[in-house]
Amino acid sequence: MFQTFDETTRPETGPNRLATLRAELDREGLDGFIVPRADAHQGEYVAPRDDRLAWLTGFTGSAGYCVALRDRAGVFADGRYRVQVRAQVGDVFSPVDWPEVGLADWIAEALPEGGTVGFDPWLHPVEQLRALQAKLPDVALQRVDNLVDRVWEDQPDPPLGAVFAQPENLAGAPHGEKIAQLAEGMEADVAVLTLPDSLAWLLNIRGSDIPRNPVPHGFAFLHAEGRVTLYMAAEKLANLGDHLGDIVTVQPPDAFVPALQALSGSVQIDPATCPVAVTDALSACDIIEAMDPCVLPKARKNAAELAGARDAHLRDGAAMVHFLAWLDAQDPDTLTEIDVVTALEAERRGTNALRDISFDTIAGAGPNGAIVHYRVNETTNRKLAKGELLLVDSGGQYVDGTTDITRTIALGEVGTEEKDAFTRVLKGMIAMSRLHWPAGMAGRDLDAVARVSLWEAGLDYGHGTGHGVGSYLCVHEGPQRLARTGTVPLEPGMMLSNEPGFYREGAYGIRLENLIAVEEAPPLPGQTIKSLLRFKTLTFVPLDLRLILPELLTGPERAWLNAYHAEVEAKIGPLVKGAARDWLSQACRAI
Amino acid sequence: MFQTFDETTRPETGPNRLATLRAELDREGLDGFIVPRADAHQGEYVAPRDDRLAWLTGFTGSAGYCVALRDRAGVFADGRYRVQVRAQVGDVFSPVDWPEVGLADWIAEALPEGGTVGFDPWLHPVEQLRALQAKLPDVALQRVDNLVDRVWEDQPDPPLGAVFAQPENLAGAPHGEKIAQLAEGMEADVAVLTLPDSLAWLLNIRGSDIPRNPVPHGFAFLHAEGRVTLYMAAEKLANLGDHLGDIVTVQPPDAFVPALQALSGSVQIDPATCPVAVTDALSACDIIEAMDPCVLPKARKNAAELAGARDAHLRDGAAMVHFLAWLDAQDPDTLTEIDVVTALEAERRGTNALRDISFDTIAGAGPNGAIVHYRVNETTNRKLAKGELLLVDSGGQYVDGTTDITRTIALGEVGTEEKDAFTRVLKGMIAMSRLHWPAGMAGRDLDAVARVSLWEAGLDYGHGTGHGVGSYLCVHEGPQRLARTGTVPLEPGMMLSNEPGFYREGAYGIRLENLIAVEEAPPLPGQTIKSLLRFKTLTFVPLDLRLILPELLTGPERAWLNAYHAEVEAKIGPLVKGAARDWLSQACRAI
Repeated sequence: MFQTFDETTRPETGPNRLATLRAELDREGLDGFIVPRADAHQGEYVAPRDDRLAWLTGFTGSAGYCVALRDRAGVFADGRYRVQVRAQVGDVFSPVDWPEVGLADWIAEALPEGGTVGFDPWLHPVEQLRALQAKLPDVALQRVDNLVDRVWEDQPDPPLGAVFAQPENLAGAPHGEKIAQLAEGMEADVAVLTLPDSLAWLLNIRGSDIPRNPVPHGFAFLHAEGRVTLYMAAEKLANLGDHLGDIVTVQPPDAFVPALQALSGSVQIDPATCPVAVTDALSACDIIEAMDPCVLPKARKNAAELAGARDAHLRDGAAMVHFLAWLDAQDPDTLTEIDVVTALEAERRGTNALRDISFDTIAGAGPNGAIVHYRVNETTNRKLAKGELLLVDSGGQYVDGTTDITRTIALGEVGTEEKDAFTRVLKGMIAMSRLHWPAGMAGRDLDAVARVSLWEAGLDYGHGTGHGVGSYLCVHEGPQRLARTGTVPLEPGMMLSNEPGFYREGAYGIRLENLIAVEEAPPLPGQTIKSLLRFKTLTFVPLDLRLILPELLTGPERAWLNAYHAEVEAKIGPLVKGAARDWLSQACRAI
Repeated sequence: MFQTFDETTRPETGPNRLATLRAELDREGLDGFIVPRADAHQGEYVAPRDDRLAWLTGFTGSAGYCVALRDRAGVFADGRYRVQVRAQVGDVFSPVDWPEVGLADWIAEALPEGGTVGFDPWLHPVEQLRALQAKLPDVALQRVDNLVDRVWEDQPDPPLGAVFAQPENLAGAPHGEKIAQLAEGMEADVAVLTLPDSLAWLLNIRGSDIPRNPVPHGFAFLHAEGRVTLYMAAEKLANLGDHLGDIVTVQPPDAFVPALQALSGSVQIDPATCPVAVTDALSACDIIEAMDPCVLPKARKNAAELAGARDAHLRDGAAMVHFLAWLDAQDPDTLTEIDVVTALEAERRGTNALRDISFDTIAGAGPNGAIVHYRVNETTNRKLAKGELLLVDSGGQYVDGTTDITRTIALGEVGTEEKDAFTRVLKGMIAMSRLHWPAGMAGRDLDAVARVSLWEAGLDYGHGTGHGVGSYLCVHEGPQRLARTGTVPLEPGMMLSNEPGFYREGAYGIRLENLIAVEEAPPLPGQTIKSLLRFKTLTFVPLDLRLILPELLTGPERAWLNAYHAEVEAKIGPLVKGAARDWLSQACRAI
């Protein structure tokens, strides 16, 4: 079992840990110290060693900060974690509604006369520090060794997870080819890579330093002459054999800073993610700020990656169908959310191909479904009940692809209000699935299309319609997004989620999610749009027909739904047996 | 008749005029001079005196530039005018596809060694010069008196159009109240106003210095203590009586620059529209750059302005219905586009309330309908023909409101392709008309909603879905737009056009346009969106049922169409008589 359910919060440890940290403030002559959730690689998951925010405050959200001053300590949590943070941190911490209240706003108010606030230059990207300093003209932001690391006695060591080669038939291109192509387009002499999934994609490797995301921690130089220097512990690379080849030179992690200091000429960094400590060490160079050169090519999946995604989704779809068929055969009153998570993970493990789950399964029954990033533990674990909805958002990491799927299931007969909202969410998902658009549009230009039916009823969801997805990499991968913050034009090969929802606080939650990939649409007669794009659906799992009000669907929407279910049955039917096969036929009937 | 149809192009005058301008370059030691279409007020229309671009080059588009160098002269025209500019300018000018090729790109290529290019500081806004200079590090951009004015022997004088008071019952608030409200929110000591429609709105006046837009040329200071200094020729104000009152001090235009030079303290200007000459004169001040303070309050129409708009649209709708009924009774083969324009203007004049047309009527028959900004003249005038489409985009300026309406009409039986495209355009217009959305969305977040049905067929239109509209002011008014460039959140009271289209080059054009106003939607049961907005339709004129393929409409779309036509008949029926009344009933029948 990958997922665990223990309650990790220990509010009682907070006061003492905060007091020892404050003693370090005194020692350094600082008025405060910033503890972000982030590590040096700015990912969604951190290794135990880097979980400083949770260690200090008890708050286990996947984003946030603590700003520890001498007389107060703010814990910054976003909308997803407003309830959670209040339950997890003790009285010595003050929860702050972030980003409505920014770090700078709060610090400026807490230190009206100004002061000196320390930060660890490895944990803050260049742009973040720049924005913070611009808003705090009277506060000196001072680089210091991490004060939490000084007082955290049993802090774990950095992870040494094994690295594996990603087979070329799945990666779609040898890493030498990728390196050569990127090098050709480079303006700088060297690009510094700090994102683990950039390293993984570029070198066709996968790692196991953090949960859920199969990436190795490390740094690299991409040289314009077409070679790479990789800063990574040699013991992690034992399984690789000669995979990396002559084109890649491996150096130990502690050689990274001296190597940065020794660089001259022009060096490219991505200011959105590159730690301040890196640019600090580049004092002898012309720094060019640009997007990490791996990000866009990684986002545009090649034919092998798309084929792998299709295979992974069929395998994962069959596991989902087994799970859904099993669930429908149970009496809801005998099950809890943890039972649901456990059963689903067992089905995925049963494929014998599961490397990890792609994130902790969200299984929210009744009102828990309305908590968008709900993660069940022994304390919150809720019994299922007839007449309620169950929202299950989950995914698997397979060597050929990363999946992410949400289904909302009726437990017995539910009310018309829930069906009306479900049908509107479905109409949004179908609208996005059927959409064609001229090349050049970004996510922000298209996001509303999935919301029109909900808006018509005065309803909405407080998250984007979709996020980018990696290819046996991070389930949340940029730069493309189907959201108002998505400014990157969608290009063929980009994979995204399509996941509109609706949440009635304290009552129920609805979300439907398929993964989709951008592709060129076949030419239409009379077409005037030069490059017409559309989405191809990757996920094949039934949508709960018991929750649909058919009279709310238009003819084309109903046709899409019936065609989708026919395709689900045709593709997944051969992969499931017995009761699940019968259940699938029934679940895929035309309406 | 407001509209004229003469061909104003004289390509033969170009060479001589360009030669005399180049003699001035020699005299000033310049390598070039920039001649924009714009005047000092950055509006869409210019007075004859300011029509320097047309005088020099022959090009009569409503936007563009000429950059006259010693050895070449580029005329910059956007997508609307690519064909026109080539027909209008002689061989001594080189048409440039702008903005694909920017001014800076072209100048940099033409002057690879750098050089000195002159410009008139009254005709270029602060931001424009800043952007141009940033892109031309090797070129000195030098302020000079306008060189065209020196060589244009019979250049007209500045306009002295009469100014009239806008009645308070139509403006909705006395100008003293508007001034007091703006003054209260001011950060600077003085805001310099350079936009004629800002002056008109703020002081409840209308002018007649330029065609189509009832605004007076002038400048003003808005003082933080709640008074205004207006720089405008006294002879224009003879009709005003004591309308302006003690709160407004009138000064002659030539007092403006000395007054700028005499200012001290903080002065607010809008860098997007304020001439460079203004900030040049403000050397003793702290300049605060911010949006013209009139722009947003002017865009949010008050109850009186919205009531006026409704009245104006009913009056204008009745004129349109008379025109459409008349047109349907004619044999198309006996009519030309000019006949159409003339008949329509006659109907509007017949209301006895028409102050001006709000722009030159676009009446495009057959392939001319595909020219988005087509304006018929004696040379292009096309005969109507059975089996073709006729696109008519027109509007009226009434004292209570500005109208703008487009209808596309079948002349006899047309093909299925045209009907399919018409129905998709209609679906887009209906989608926008039915849309509800949470407050905070800008035009760019919503624009796609009107395009989905066209995109589905590989079709699109190369313009925004809608522009802001003034209240007996400019028919194109910012800052709100329904377009990918629309970044200002839509607020209750904002008026916009809703005008999707489709253009098959060389064959036909389709556009449908209603004006709409943003309003709070009535609360819905179970609504979770805090502030739910929608559009209220202002335009009531039938949409041509002969061009609709009913099977392409969904139930809710058909219901909207039938309800719209029922409302058209109920509202406009009482205002039309005889054959037009019968025509209206038939045109508004339910489908």
